[in-house]
Amino acid sequence: ELGDFREDINNIKPEYVKSFQFENKLMPLTWIVVRIDGCHFHRFSEVHEFEKPNDEQALNLMNSCAVAVLEQFKDVIFSYGVSDEYSFVLKKDSQFYQRRGSEIVTALVSYFTSIYVMKWKEFFPQKELKYPPCFDGRAVLYPTSEILRDYLTWRQVDCHINNQYNTCFWMLVKSGKSKSEAQAYLKGTQAREKNEVLVQQFGIDYNTLPLMFRQGSSAFWNKEEKTGMYENGASAEKSGKKVVVEHCNIIEQSFWEAHPSILNEKPHMV
Amino acid sequence: ELGDFREDINNIKPEYVKSFQFENKLMPLTWIVVRIDGCHFHRFSEVHEFEKPNDEQALNLMNSCAVAVLEQFKDVIFSYGVSDEYSFVLKKDSQFYQRRGSEIVTALVSYFTSIYVMKWKEFFPQKELKYPPCFDGRAVLYPTSEILRDYLTWRQVDCHINNQYNTCFWMLVKSGKSKSEAQAYLKGTQAREKNEVLVQQFGIDYNTLPLMFRQGSSAFWNKEEKTGMYENGASAEKSGKKVVVEHCNIIEQSFWEAHPSILNEKPHMV
Amino acid sequence: ELGDFREDINNIKPEYVKSFQFENKLMPLTWIVVRIDGCHFHRFSEVHEFEKPNDEQALNLMNSCAVAVLEQFKDVIFSYGVSDEYSFVLKKDSQFYQRRGSEIVTALVSYFTSIYVMKWKEFFPQKELKYPPCFDGRAVLYPTSEILRDYLTWRQVDCHINNQYNTCFWMLVKSGKSKSEAQAYLKGTQAREKNEVLVQQFGIDYNTLPLMFRQGSSAFWNKEEKTGMYENGASAEKSGKKVVVEHCNIIEQSFWEAHPSILNEKPHMV
Amino acid sequence: ELGDFREDINNIKPEYVKSFQFENKLMPLTWIVVRIDGCHFHRFSEVHEFEKPNDEQALNLMNSCAVAVLEQFKDVIFSYGVSDEYSFVLKKDSQFYQRRGSEIVTALVSYFTSIYVMKWKEFFPQKELKYPPCFDGRAVLYPTSEILRDYLTWRQVDCHINNQYNTCFWMLVKSGKSKSEAQAYLKGTQAREKNEVLVQQFGIDYNTLPLMFRQGSSAFWNKEEKTGMYENGASAEKSGKKVVVEHCNIIEQSFWEAHPSILNEKPHMV
Repeated sequence: ELGDFREDINNIKPEYVKSFQFENKLMPLTWIVVRIDGCHFHRFSEVHEFEKPNDEQALNLMNSCAVAVLEQFKDVIFSYGVSDEYSFVLKKDSQFYQRRGSEIVTALVSYFTSIYVMKWKEFFPQKELKYPPCFDGRAVLYPTSEILRDYLTWRQVDCHINNQYNTCFWMLVKSGKSKSEAQAYLKGTQAREKNEVLVQQFGIDYNTLPLMFRQGSSAFWNKEEKTGMYENGASAEKSGKKVVVEHCNIIEQSFWEAHPSILNEKPHMV
Repeated sequence: ELGDFREDINNIKPEYVKSFQFENKLMPLTWIVVRIDGCHFHRFSEVHEFEKPNDEQALNLMNSCAVAVLEQFKDVIFSYGVSDEYSFVLKKDSQFYQRRGSEIVTALVSYFTSIYVMKWKEFFPQKELKYPPCFDGRAVLYPTSEILRDYLTWRQVDCHINNQYNTCFWMLVKSGKSKSEAQAYLKGTQAREKNEVLVQQFGIDYNTLPLMFRQGSSAFWNKEEKTGMYENGASAEKSGKKVVVEHCNIIEQSFWEAHPSILNEKPHMV
Repeated sequence: ELGDFREDINNIKPEYVKSFQFENKLMPLTWIVVRIDGCHFHRFSEVHEFEKPNDEQALNLMNSCAVAVLEQFKDVIFSYGVSDEYSFVLKKDSQFYQRRGSEIVTALVSYFTSIYVMKWKEFFPQKELKYPPCFDGRAVLYPTSEILRDYLTWRQVDCHINNQYNTCFWMLVKSGKSKSEAQAYLKGTQAREKNEVLVQQFGIDYNTLPLMFRQGSSAFWNKEEKTGMYENGASAEKSGKKVVVEHCNIIEQSFWEAHPSILNEKPHMV
Repeated sequence: ELGDFREDINNIKPEYVKSFQFENKLMPLTWIVVRIDGCHFHRFSEVHEFEKPNDEQALNLMNSCAVAVLEQFKDVIFSYGVSDEYSFVLKKDSQFYQRRGSEIVTALVSYFTSIYVMKWKEFFPQKELKYPPCFDGRAVLYPTSEILRDYLTWRQVDCHINNQYNTCFWMLVKSGKSKSEAQAYLKGTQAREKNEVLVQQFGIDYNTLPLMFRQGSSAFWNKEEKTGMYENGASAEKSGKKVVVEHCNIIEQSFWEAHPSILNEKPHMV
C-alpha cells in the first residue's frame, strides 16, 4: 500500500499545486482598515434576547473583544465599533503577515470571534450562548490619514443616524405600535423631527442618552496619559500605555489633536 | 453639538468612502478551496499539553469543527484536515456571498473558531482553554476537478510525510534523545529508513498506526448511504444525508468513484 | 553636482520603490482571452470614410493584424474578430510573460497597433492615415474549453445581431431616412422582421451577404491541412502550418471537431 | 441555418459570459504611474542601427511620442523617459476609464506605439522601419506625492548609472576591446573610476555630455511660462500651456518648487 503512496509522492509537484495561490499583498505605506461585521446578528440578537435598541452588555462584550485585539496585534493602532460591527486600523507601515490581506483579515476575525465566545459568560452570566456566533470581515485601504479619518467619520455618522432611528423605532414599538406601523411613522422624517418625537411622546432628550449608544466606542492605546498618576500600577500602566475604550467624537479635529500618537502626526502648532 | 454633527452628515459622501473598497470576486465556475491554519499552534499545543506526535482529542475537536462547517455552509461539499489545518472545498458553482473572497474566507474561519472554543470542554473536559485559539485562512481556486484532486493529493501526501517524520522524531525524543539529536538523526533519511527505525528501535509497524494519524480526516456529506437502514432516524439520516468523517485514501481514484456526488461526476461506467 | 547625485543613489532603495508593484498573475491552466477594441472607432471610421455598415478593406486590415499577432506570439492559438474588436485566445498552459496580465495584454495590443499603422497603406493606398489609431484591451480567463467556447459563441452571436441591425439601418439611411428615423423604424423589431425589411424594401437576401460580414473572421493555425498538397511550398506550408482567416460558424460543434488541434482536444470518435 | 443560429442566441446568456470579467479598478486618490518598455529593443536598436550608447534621434522620437500622449490624455500630468522606457504619471484624482487598470495601460501603450510608427519617417528619413516595434506596460500606484517622487528619483538615478556604464562600455568597444573584455574591465568599478576611465583614456569629461543622455527627458505641461511672450501664438501657447521636454534634475526639490502645478502642490513659502 505504501508503495503506491510513495509513487504518488514523487508524482505530485508542490510547486505546481502552489502556483494556483494568488498574491493579495496590500499596497505598502497605506492605512489598512479591517472591518468586522456580525453574520446574521439580527437573528443572533433575537435568540439571545438583546435589549433594543441597544444592549449595553452586548456592546461591552464587543468592546472587550476589540481591546483584546489591540493588545494581541500590536500593529492595530485604533478601532471603532458600533452595533455588531468593528473597524480596526493598522498602522500604515505595518508588515503584519507581509501585508497579505487574507491572512491579516482572517487572523483578526478569528481572534475576535474566539474572545467573543470565551468572554460570553463574563458579560452574560445568566444567558447561555445558544449557537456559535460568526463574523465576516474585509480589508479596505486608505492612502492618507485624511481619507482614513473620512472613513471613521462616515462610520460615526452612520452610528448617529442609525441610533436615532432605532431609538425612535423601538420606543414606538414598546408603546404599542406594530413594527410596520413604527416604520411607516418614521418614514421620511428628519433628524429634528425624530428628536421631537422622542421629547414630545416619550419625554426623552436624545442628547442625554448614553454616549456609547450615540457615538459608538473607540478603543485605542492611550499613550498620552500622565504616567505619574499611577503609583502602584502595572508595568503597562506605569508606562502610560493602556488600551482604553472611550465614547468620544472622533469626527472633530480636537480628538486627533489630543491623541497625536495614534496617527503619528505631530501635534497642531499654535 | 448636534448641529455640528448634522453638518458633518451632509459633508461626508458614503459613495466616496466606499469607493476605496475593492472587489475580490472569485472566478465563476471554479472550485474554491478555503484552507484554515492554526496561528502559532506549536505554542498552543504545548501550553495545552497536546500529546505528541498526534493528540487524538485535538484532532477529534478539529474534525468536529469541520463537520459543523459543512452543516452550516451548504456549499462546502468536502473537507480534508490534518494537524492544525483544514481545507474546505466549495462547489464550483457556489454563489455564497456572490463569491466575494474575503467574506467567504472570514465567515468560514470565524465559524470554525467559534465552534472550536464552544466545543473545547466537550473534548477536553479536564483541560481549561488557557488563551484564545486563532486561525488564519485563504482561498485558492482550481479550474478543474482534476487539479482540485491534485491539491487534495498534495495535502494527504504531506500528511503522510509529516506524520512519518513526527512519529520517528517523538519516539526518539521519548526514548531519551534531545530534540536536536533526534532532528540530526533523521536528517536525510528516506521513508523506508524511517520505517526501519520505528520497527527496529521501537517495535512499531508504521502501517498499524491509527488511520487518522496516517491519512488525515475527510469530512463530507455521505449521500450514497442506503436510507432504508435507518428506521427511527432523524430526517437528515432518513434522507441518507449526513456529514461523516472518514480516514480514507483520497489520492486513489476509487474513493471518488465510490462517492461520485461529491464532485458531481458521473460514476465510472464498467 | 555629481556628489549630490551619488548621495541620492545611496538614499533610494529600489526594493522599496519596487514594493509598490503588484502582482497580476493570471490563474494557471486556464484559457486566457485578450480582447482588443478600437478606441473611439466610431469617429475613426467617419474621419477615414469607412464604408457602412461594413468596410471590407478595414476588416481585411484588422484580419491582417490578427494574422501577424498569431505569427508573432506562438501561444495565441485562435482569434476571432468583428468590426473594430478582436479576441485572442492563448493556450491554457501558456507561460508567456510568466502569465503576468499587464504585460501579456499590452504586448498584444501594442503589436496589433504597430501592424495596423504599418500596413495601413497596403490596404488603403488612396487614403492617408489622418491620426493615430488606438486600441485598448483586457484579459479574461475561462476555466474550461466549454466556457471558452461559450465566450466565442457570444461574440459571434453579437456579430450576427449587430450586423443584421446595421445592414437594415444603413440601407434605410441610404434610402433617404434620417439616422433617428431609421433608429425609430427598427426599434423593437425581431430578426425575422429585419430580414423582411431587407428583402421587401431593398431586395436583399441577408443570407447572401458576404460571410465575413455575417459571421466575422477567425484567424488560426491550420495544422490539419494535408501537407502533401504543396510541392514547392515554403517551409511553413510544407509542414502544413499556416495562419488562415476563415469566416466560418464557430458556434457549431463541427468547426471544433474539424480543427481538434486548436483546443488540443481529441477528435470526436464515431 | 439561421434557425439554428437564433436558437443559439437564446441559449447564450451574456451576463454569464461577462461574469468572468474581473474588476481591476485602481485605488482612488492615488497616483497612477504607467510605465512603458520596449519589447526586445536590444535587437530593435541593432537592426535599426541605433548609435551607441545613445541614439539622439531615437530618443527624440520617444520624447515626441510622450508629448503626443500628454496632449491626447489630459490626465497625464508628467512623464519621464530614458532609453526605451517611459513613465507616465496620471493625476491622483483621475477618473480615466473609471480607473480600470487594463484599459488605462493599454490605451496609453497603444497610442504611444501608434505615434512611434507614424513619426518614424520624420525622425529617421533615411531608415526604413524594418519590423513592427512593440512596447509593454504596467500600472503602479503610489499613495503620496513623496513616494511618487521617490519613484521618479529611482528612474533618474538608474538613468545616470546606466548611462555612465554604457558610455564607458561603448567607448572601450569602439577603441578595440571586445564586448566581453569591456564588460570584464568595468566589473566592480565605482562611479569615480568610470569617470576617470573616460577622462584618461578617451579625454571625455562625463559632465559635458548632453543632458538628455545623463538626466533623461521629462515631458510635462509648462503652465508656469509667461504668457505675454507669445504675440501670435496658437491658443495653447497664448494660455501659456504647452507640453515641453526638458532634461533637468527631477530629484532635487527645486524642480518641483519651480513647477508647483504638476503635483498641484502649493509653492514652498519662504
